[in-house]
Amino acid sequence: MPLWKIYAPAGAYSDEDKGAMSEVITSLYAQIPIPKFYVVTIFEEIRDGDCFVGGVQHSRFVRFRVDHIARTLPGPIFREWWVRTVDQSLKPWVGDRGFDWEVSIEETPFDLWSLQGEIPPPFESVAEKRWVEENRPSSYTIEEKLPAAPFVLGPGVTGNHSVVSVS
Amino acid sequence: MPLWKIYAPAGAYSDEDKGAMSEVITSLYAQIPIPKFYVVTIFEEIRDGDCFVGGVQHSRFVRFRVDHIARTLPGPIFREWWVRTVDQSLKPWVGDRGFDWEVSIEETPFDLWSLQGEIPPPFESVAEKRWVEENRPSSYTIEEKLPAAPFVLGPGVTGNHSVVSVS
Amino acid sequence: MPLWKIYAPAGAYSDEDKGAMSEVITSLYAQIPIPKFYVVTIFEEIRDGDCFVGGVQHSRFVRFRVDHIARTLPGPIFREWWVRTVDQSLKPWVGDRGFDWEVSIEETPFDLWSLQGEIPPPFESVAEKRWVEENRPSSYTIEEKLPAAPFVLGPGVTGNHSVVSVS
Repeated sequence: MPLWKIYAPAGAYSDEDKGAMSEVITSLYAQIPIPKFYVVTIFEEIRDGDCFVGGVQHSRFVRFRVDHIARTLPGPIFREWWVRTVDQSLKPWVGDRGFDWEVSIEETPFDLWSLQGEIPPPFESVAEKRWVEENRPSSYTIEEKLPAAPFVLGPGVTGNHSVVSVS
Repeated sequence: MPLWKIYAPAGAYSDEDKGAMSEVITSLYAQIPIPKFYVVTIFEEIRDGDCFVGGVQHSRFVRFRVDHIARTLPGPIFREWWVRTVDQSLKPWVGDRGFDWEVSIEETPFDLWSLQGEIPPPFESVAEKRWVEENRPSSYTIEEKLPAAPFVLGPGVTGNHSVVSVS
Repeated sequence: MPLWKIYAPAGAYSDEDKGAMSEVITSLYAQIPIPKFYVVTIFEEIRDGDCFVGGVQHSRFVRFRVDHIARTLPGPIFREWWVRTVDQSLKPWVGDRGFDWEVSIEETPFDLWSLQGEIPPPFESVAEKRWVEENRPSSYTIEEKLPAAPFVLGPGVTGNHSVVSVS
């Protein structure tokens, strides 16, 4: 689900660094929880001379560009918390090592996404809980698309109907 | 219009593979139809050790990241059909060869896009039909921005006016 | 804020070309004005054989993919002007040199963005003006989040309250 593209100067990070960063990033999402295998981290080493900040060549800049599926961060409080948490988690590999850095997160449509040829189950559904436990995609039933948390059906119309008048 | 970034392990695909994948991807859009030259496919070979899934290094993972211009996929039925069609078309190069894979599609604003310095004509306009036939961008007239399909003008106000009261 | 990814054929541009392009791109944003250091340009050289347009391999194609923070381009007139201005500015490095090119701009959420661990101040705030002058990020006070332009407080309720009834 989240795709992290990490544009870093060539040679900035060792394989061990990359592994450790990927683990920390994954753990941020695992606490939600969402399946760990949803988290993809791709490092791209940028040749010295190919990165400019403010029109000036910059050799020590790390740019994190993240794709989220829409609706994962509801409301301003959760959003600010998330941005600050991400920065705090990345700090050992950027600020603490003298790199400048920038993070931006894009939200992409939930329903234009697939994984191993499967359309992932709804957030917080029974199937998603199973995917979290098994840590791999698999097919799921229509019953497993229902919410994992208890819920009650109530009277009335849902917001999805375009009700012109209810008088 | 669609930009396909394909992040694949270095050496996973031959030049012939890449050409064949690009042709299949292009044909998906050509059936809509939209001009073939709208479809751009860029392959990026990922060095072994630069890709992680769930915090674990993964050497056989292909990540497709697609940009669509907004409004190309109206409604849930067309959207699910599209995701499944894409997966079916890619299968020979991923699942069938033992690669794990993931596809996500982003929808970007139609009006912040240009091609050879031309702002592309409206979808399903006369000009777009001509671009489909000629398979290259060119300038177009204001008349060619009208829909190619027959349409009738009716009485009344359009939804673009903010009509407070029509009583 | 704007992240420019420039996918160009390997060897298409010298280091001087890249610097000049980055400066021109930065100057487009500096006139708004926004802080110059908001503008990041990353060049990615595409190996011959890795880029396809319309399913056909293309060795002289430059693809600009830009991320903007949402709400920077309000209204159709400003948006068209921007797309045309960008194309005009890029022309010396693309059309004039015989390259085909395409530009698309994505708008990403303002509130999922950070820079050096700081959440950037609101657009046109006092703090942003200071960032423009100092050309580097720094912490700012809650007073500096207010608009730099003069404004007056008026009576009544704002649109942010969910007012069910005002009778």
